[in-house]
Amino acid sequence: MSTTQFNETTRQARKKKGLVIVNTGNGKGKTTAALGMMLRAWGRDMRIGVIQFLKHKKARFGEIKAAERMEIDWISTGNGFTWTSQDIDETEARARHGWQLAQERIAHGNYDLLILDEFTYPLHFKWLDTQQVIAWLKANKPPGLHLIITGRYAPEALIEYADLVTEMREVKHPYEEQGIKAQPGIEF
Amino acid sequence: MSTTQFNETTRQARKKKGLVIVNTGNGKGKTTAALGMMLRAWGRDMRIGVIQFLKHKKARFGEIKAAERMEIDWISTGNGFTWTSQDIDETEARARHGWQLAQERIAHGNYDLLILDEFTYPLHFKWLDTQQVIAWLKANKPPGLHLIITGRYAPEALIEYADLVTEMREVKHPYEEQGIKAQPGIEF
Repeated sequence: MSTTQFNETTRQARKKKGLVIVNTGNGKGKTTAALGMMLRAWGRDMRIGVIQFLKHKKARFGEIKAAERMEIDWISTGNGFTWTSQDIDETEARARHGWQLAQERIAHGNYDLLILDEFTYPLHFKWLDTQQVIAWLKANKPPGLHLIITGRYAPEALIEYADLVTEMREVKHPYEEQGIKAQPGIEF
Repeated sequence: MSTTQFNETTRQARKKKGLVIVNTGNGKGKTTAALGMMLRAWGRDMRIGVIQFLKHKKARFGEIKAAERMEIDWISTGNGFTWTSQDIDETEARARHGWQLAQERIAHGNYDLLILDEFTYPLHFKWLDTQQVIAWLKANKPPGLHLIITGRYAPEALIEYADLVTEMREVKHPYEEQGIKAQPGIEF
């Protein structure tokens, strides 16, 4: 095989590489950066889906509105943050259901980019087995699919499996210290 | 003044608080998280502008395409990364011009959200005086305007001035180590 052929092959293989991306840490910007990637992918006419594993009090109003306009599939699951939920079993059941939805969509090759928003929590709280999830992804994720997983407490095995991991670290946060409320259009 | 009145006043004041947000650090997601906030703001029909201080080889294709569709003002300035530029003076001149454009738009109250993408570099390289920039912003930024500044090497004084600062820290990066190219729709 000539060098040219080799390079060509490598380039092709590289082009098709769908990344597994994890945005974790205690700072802002985990979901927000995923939304930024969604915006780029949308600018390039990619097929995009979002599965939101935890339901927020403020309901992610800004991004859901935007996703509607952009005709992006946005699936909300979960019934509130685990630490405020009155019914852990239901939260867990919904997270498991969210993973089923994710599996169907991944296996059917519906998307070029799929965001599993706050998917680290079902793993962290062991509602889903991290090793099983990774084994399933290794066997079933289409090679070209970009998968973005957000949330605190990303399990070590997930970080091992991922291609790109960023920790968002809080340097300065106004909301508690300075009595500033979370701002519409910025935080949600 | 009654408690109700006080609370009402506080709520009003809080509502109008335009944040100064800095996304810095050596990891991915600084511009990307700014784009995510842009998406939220767009979902809420806010008036949005972006001034891009450095021109990229890959031209930020995905996000510029998206901004066009979203009818968001996107101003590109700069003539390439400083570390590859053949002409530092021109790079500096363009960054200064970008700051003039930013000042006009901030002073005229054109926007609810203005992103100064990679604005930390002109400050870091001292093409612009950080103290003067901050003094100008303190005197001229409309109280309701959200201002997002991205880039590595955010000067300490800027971090002091900002309301919300996040450091994006690289935990794992595929591109150099694993021979994976930057992916369209994800990185640009």
